[in-house]
Amino acid sequence: MGRAITVRDMISVEEARERILSHFSRLEPETKPITDGLGQVLAQDVRSDFDIPPLDNTAMDGYAVIAADTDGASEASPVRLRVAGDLAAGYIYEGTVTPGTAVRIMTGASIPGGADSIVPFEETDEALDGPKLETEVAVLKAVQPGANVRKAGEDVRKGETVLPKDAVLHAAQIGLLASVGKAEVSVYRRPVVAILSTGDELLDVGEPVMPGKIYDSNAYSVSSMVVEAGGIPQRLGIAADTVDALTVKLREGLEADMLVTSAGVSRGDFDVVKDVLAKEGEIDFWTVRMRPGKPLACGAFSTENGHVPHIGLPGNPVSSMVTFELFGRPAIYKMLGKAGWQRPRVTAVAKERIVNEDGRRVYARAILTRNGDGDHEASLTGPQGSGILTSMALANALAIVPEDALAIEPGQQVECLLLE
Amino acid sequence: MGRAITVRDMISVEEARERILSHFSRLEPETKPITDGLGQVLAQDVRSDFDIPPLDNTAMDGYAVIAADTDGASEASPVRLRVAGDLAAGYIYEGTVTPGTAVRIMTGASIPGGADSIVPFEETDEALDGPKLETEVAVLKAVQPGANVRKAGEDVRKGETVLPKDAVLHAAQIGLLASVGKAEVSVYRRPVVAILSTGDELLDVGEPVMPGKIYDSNAYSVSSMVVEAGGIPQRLGIAADTVDALTVKLREGLEADMLVTSAGVSRGDFDVVKDVLAKEGEIDFWTVRMRPGKPLACGAFSTENGHVPHIGLPGNPVSSMVTFELFGRPAIYKMLGKAGWQRPRVTAVAKERIVNEDGRRVYARAILTRNGDGDHEASLTGPQGSGILTSMALANALAIVPEDALAIEPGQQVECLLLE
Repeated sequence: MGRAITVRDMISVEEARERILSHFSRLEPETKPITDGLGQVLAQDVRSDFDIPPLDNTAMDGYAVIAADTDGASEASPVRLRVAGDLAAGYIYEGTVTPGTAVRIMTGASIPGGADSIVPFEETDEALDGPKLETEVAVLKAVQPGANVRKAGEDVRKGETVLPKDAVLHAAQIGLLASVGKAEVSVYRRPVVAILSTGDELLDVGEPVMPGKIYDSNAYSVSSMVVEAGGIPQRLGIAADTVDALTVKLREGLEADMLVTSAGVSRGDFDVVKDVLAKEGEIDFWTVRMRPGKPLACGAFSTENGHVPHIGLPGNPVSSMVTFELFGRPAIYKMLGKAGWQRPRVTAVAKERIVNEDGRRVYARAILTRNGDGDHEASLTGPQGSGILTSMALANALAIVPEDALAIEPGQQVECLLLE
Repeated sequence: MGRAITVRDMISVEEARERILSHFSRLEPETKPITDGLGQVLAQDVRSDFDIPPLDNTAMDGYAVIAADTDGASEASPVRLRVAGDLAAGYIYEGTVTPGTAVRIMTGASIPGGADSIVPFEETDEALDGPKLETEVAVLKAVQPGANVRKAGEDVRKGETVLPKDAVLHAAQIGLLASVGKAEVSVYRRPVVAILSTGDELLDVGEPVMPGKIYDSNAYSVSSMVVEAGGIPQRLGIAADTVDALTVKLREGLEADMLVTSAGVSRGDFDVVKDVLAKEGEIDFWTVRMRPGKPLACGAFSTENGHVPHIGLPGNPVSSMVTFELFGRPAIYKMLGKAGWQRPRVTAVAKERIVNEDGRRVYARAILTRNGDGDHEASLTGPQGSGILTSMALANALAIVPEDALAIEPGQQVECLLLE
């Protein structure tokens, strides 16, 4: 703290992220009911123990027949077959289809022995007259052997891997697990993220207004970002700016997989957080070459069982959200075993000037829209002060001004990270 | 059921959706802790009861001074001021800054009476030597009145609407609610969606394999889609194909806001679902001009307190997912009071032929990638049979072949709905 910090002393966003991620590892697997695994990552390959479909079955409602019986059938000269039975899906026909006979059969039902093809209702007289529990059906069109038959194992072969390790479980994957009979699934555990706000100036929501105090918003915005990223937030509340208060609160988060503090990391107020973390673990203070969100801390809080990685966010509401977006969210993804923390990027045309005051990379809160030609356009959401959360609430993107650009001028291209 | 269904008898996807949505309304508001409202929609405007910041405060760590005192200050001839106090954020300075004095002050702290500007540490000798609890500070640069002061109400004025009714609560909005001191929020309630699978051929996961039977996947994939859309799934399990079994199971879903059944709506097996719904409410059967997912039912199940809207999905795993995507998801959004159920659309170049066999709109499971030029390309995920859930698990988009196109040829443009 003994000298002014200049741009040369700063580390890049990429270097900060790399250093932070080095503190995190994928968590251990847990086994849970398949629907509870939605959004998590498979910890092992899932194979099918059986063919799907398990037996040859019909893709259509119709009649199971011997194809040769239908040779020459037409509307003008239908082939009449004796209906020997009626078979719903889920049942096995006990008899055998013999020449001159047919079994009425519903989609999904297994093909009766002896039959080799299905004549759909539409190609029989049932289509014209509705189902009659008659003993004869007229086939109006010849079928080929195998017609409308789904073969056993056509979708999935016994022993086949239906979902590989590291697959993310969305709705189709959960359905696929069910289709191979799995009630439970092994996925990497969701991280518990302990969140602590520091500062004597903070009130918690629900407390009465007091002169000079402000309501803590960081615990709530960051906790919501943790949920959106797939973690489980554990809000520790607000710690006063004393070593004792901070130590007590931090120790409540010792069971967590990650500790996030906000405030207490800018130049003037290093000492309390620094002292506590230095005593209870280790901490690095960085100045990241970005705006908003310059000051950042990273370290680890020692516990009896090891250590809890720690990210210290700036106290300003927008800075804390932007730094959590760039550093905290990737850490949660890494613990989940999930790739793809990168937000989609879009190149837009700047609708207004976006300035870069001091050679840091600017992440400006922006509204991305499409013009008549389908091109993306980026406008700022208003004043870019880092205390102004309304501007973050309006944003659907962060527009990036590179370190070496003095400004993006209206009409110039600007790269944007999509937030939604 | 007395005649073949032709394309002319079918209704369009848009007409089916409009008819279905006419059964649904936005649900009533509920009040809950702000973090629990994440993803829901505000049922009323939220105003601030106070200015933010509540008082003029400092944007920097530094010294609160009278600007006129610093006139002419430079590194060569610093202005020396007596340090009359030290003020952390959250505290109010009891005294007054008089000419020739300064108060050491931390970011966010209220500006002491008498002072009109802040000299940052970097522009004092503290920056060079570190903080000394001395009684004098040397100012190295003149400041203007108002420098580094954030004015009361600069971010939010007392009485101002910070979030309008109908805003969706993401992380920034939750933070904004906290910043105006709100512990609770009024949002439109999440719908409970009862999900019932029908069919004698179905086994539930965990049951042993049986000949001719298949595992029910629809309850699990649809339940996951309900969660992803913001609803609360209530799985009713599997009903056998009998009036009694179906009636008993359906009545378990009477407290839900929406009932989803799967299977039992195709031509051959209308009768059981039709009979039960006709007795217990009302139901329409439609053939929607789309593939997969042609048969669809919609109606309402009567209860003592009114009725529960009902969507009857096809039984095939892919058909049920695609129809729930097109019809069920918008219904959940409508109940949540949420706009934007439409998926983003992208025009891609088809990498392979996508056929349209029979004049219906095809929703083909596709993998969308970008080529070297940044253009989107769409490939199919494999065979497009509607029983094959593996193809759905691989898809990140649905590629649309219009009703009047016989096929999309390789190299032609194809419109795609993004699923992720």
